[in-house]
Amino acid sequence: MSSPKQVNIAVIGTGGVGAVFVSQLAWLAKHRPSVHLSLCYIAMIDKALYHPDYSEIDIDTAVSTLESTGRAPPAIPEIIEYLAGAPHKVIMVDNTSSGAIAESYPQFLARGISIITPNKKAFSGNYKLWQDIFSAAESGQALVFHESSVGAGMPIISTIKELVQTGDEVTRIEGVFSGTMSFLFNCFAPISNTGSNAKWSDIVKQAKELGYTEPDPRDDLNGLDVARKLTILGRLAGLPIESPSSFPVESLIPKELENVANGNEFIQRLNEFDDEMEKEKNAAEKAGKVVRFVGSIDMASKQVKVGMEWFDPMHPIATLKGSDNIISFFTKRYGAMPLTIRGAGAGGDVTAMGVTGDLLKVITQLRE
Amino acid sequence: MSSPKQVNIAVIGTGGVGAVFVSQLAWLAKHRPSVHLSLCYIAMIDKALYHPDYSEIDIDTAVSTLESTGRAPPAIPEIIEYLAGAPHKVIMVDNTSSGAIAESYPQFLARGISIITPNKKAFSGNYKLWQDIFSAAESGQALVFHESSVGAGMPIISTIKELVQTGDEVTRIEGVFSGTMSFLFNCFAPISNTGSNAKWSDIVKQAKELGYTEPDPRDDLNGLDVARKLTILGRLAGLPIESPSSFPVESLIPKELENVANGNEFIQRLNEFDDEMEKEKNAAEKAGKVVRFVGSIDMASKQVKVGMEWFDPMHPIATLKGSDNIISFFTKRYGAMPLTIRGAGAGGDVTAMGVTGDLLKVITQLRE
Repeated sequence: MSSPKQVNIAVIGTGGVGAVFVSQLAWLAKHRPSVHLSLCYIAMIDKALYHPDYSEIDIDTAVSTLESTGRAPPAIPEIIEYLAGAPHKVIMVDNTSSGAIAESYPQFLARGISIITPNKKAFSGNYKLWQDIFSAAESGQALVFHESSVGAGMPIISTIKELVQTGDEVTRIEGVFSGTMSFLFNCFAPISNTGSNAKWSDIVKQAKELGYTEPDPRDDLNGLDVARKLTILGRLAGLPIESPSSFPVESLIPKELENVANGNEFIQRLNEFDDEMEKEKNAAEKAGKVVRFVGSIDMASKQVKVGMEWFDPMHPIATLKGSDNIISFFTKRYGAMPLTIRGAGAGGDVTAMGVTGDLLKVITQLRE
Repeated sequence: MSSPKQVNIAVIGTGGVGAVFVSQLAWLAKHRPSVHLSLCYIAMIDKALYHPDYSEIDIDTAVSTLESTGRAPPAIPEIIEYLAGAPHKVIMVDNTSSGAIAESYPQFLARGISIITPNKKAFSGNYKLWQDIFSAAESGQALVFHESSVGAGMPIISTIKELVQTGDEVTRIEGVFSGTMSFLFNCFAPISNTGSNAKWSDIVKQAKELGYTEPDPRDDLNGLDVARKLTILGRLAGLPIESPSSFPVESLIPKELENVANGNEFIQRLNEFDDEMEKEKNAAEKAGKVVRFVGSIDMASKQVKVGMEWFDPMHPIATLKGSDNIISFFTKRYGAMPLTIRGAGAGGDVTAMGVTGDLLKVITQLRE
């Protein structure tokens, strides 16, 4: 196969995922000599590094050079103009969680710039943006891949796409889509009775201290992250979901704490509401079940929901450990027993791997 | 992306998987109008259908036309000669389990004919054939995909390839790789104590009646199917495994029954050996475990093995149901908790889907 000889790479975002991706890119550049990967643009929130003549930036030292010599980044239209003028095909890797960049994907794609990203925003925003992205990709003959937007490096997006593209019919999707929620509930309601009796507020506090939550845990507890992932999977399965707020999402933020000033104050006052969570846990236990925070999509009824549900202790969702995700696809071909994928759904290494995996796919599909 | 406008498809084998594949191909031809999929050759064991001018065979009626008008199939070198002369790129889909066709893959590939197959033989034969296949693919600029050779339509091969190609390091692979073995042990040693006390020989008999075993159950019980799958995964992970017989494989065929005439006689006499299996099951139970038939690869010690092992009743391998497969990849990036994929690892629909999924991948990567 005659892959392109050279591909230009632009990287936006050098945070947790971005920095690891750049190191994986460096590894790839050394181990995939059939395609020359030329880094032509790299940027962080307030700095950018690039050369008007598209000359190559050394990948190994890119992040430190950016930090020491980067200038103020250009506006997004200027970035697009710059990349569209490059002498070879360009792949823009968006490792941010920026809504503004997400909204500009159609402009990148329409100019023939392919996009790879773990950023959920674009694919779980309003449905019009979703449509614009894929029609721009078609008109610009560009590719857009976002494996890490659900389940990090696990083969979730590629699997549901293949099910649909080969003519299978997805009937139901269910699972634990948030590493934070997984950790919280696996600690709070362990399947063995010998488990801890720790209070909900103490577990949330511990999770925050371990770095398993966002700086403000309410950003996990509001269920929006799970709702965004379901929006993406539902759309790929064929449901034109309007937005992550167009279906019921159970928030675990007590009403009284919705407006407290910050995450620390939230954590300090959360114990006032431990009884409510304890009640839910005990009710589940009395029914011989354990409580978990799950998302599900039922294709026939078009019902999408996010919230607490009870599971038999032998159910794969109940036996999950640590902060693992689990996602099950029920389809016509798989019948009563779903195809299930389980593992780490967050973390820099595995999220970056999903991005690097997408890069390999884009490279093999791109034509000069 | 400018995919090829036309791709020629040759299908060998129209049995359980092959017939379903042809129906999925018909679906695909109607739903993927960007590439014209032209069936130019179709064959079963004693018949072949093709035209010297490569004119198209109607996919919808191909199998019945083959059955009614097919002639004796040409020898493999003639098939290769015919396909290599086609006016567009050719993909040969081998839906047989033929060793002779598998051994000729290098000749197909060297002539630029891409190969897609669920046939394990080629990838789990001797290591020289493995090397010949991939070097012929490179010299012929052809592609070779075999997702369904392990775990049917589940993303097993694609996942391990991506782990390796993005620079992750596989440390251990373990799982239940045989739907038959899964069914037998899930019935024989269920995790709940209220489970059946059925005898081993009765379960094997029932499995045979349900069509879950090969016509002669010894072809499942000898462990070779599992050994072949481990050979493939081990090689993809980087171990140059010489053959499926170069590591310990526990056979569940009693020595005394190795040479009985056929499957029926085997089934009739198997109850003489129920005590041995009962002993294993009880010993595991006394240790608070259940017995399962698993395969594993430890990359550091280069140890590959297939056989019975004991698992905690909460272990994902123990809680497997029906005839599901489960395969776990332990890697450097995933750390202590593996990436695990579970679901149907056999059956016409899902095996054919893996083949059709590979076809989509090959199409997007092929160049005119």
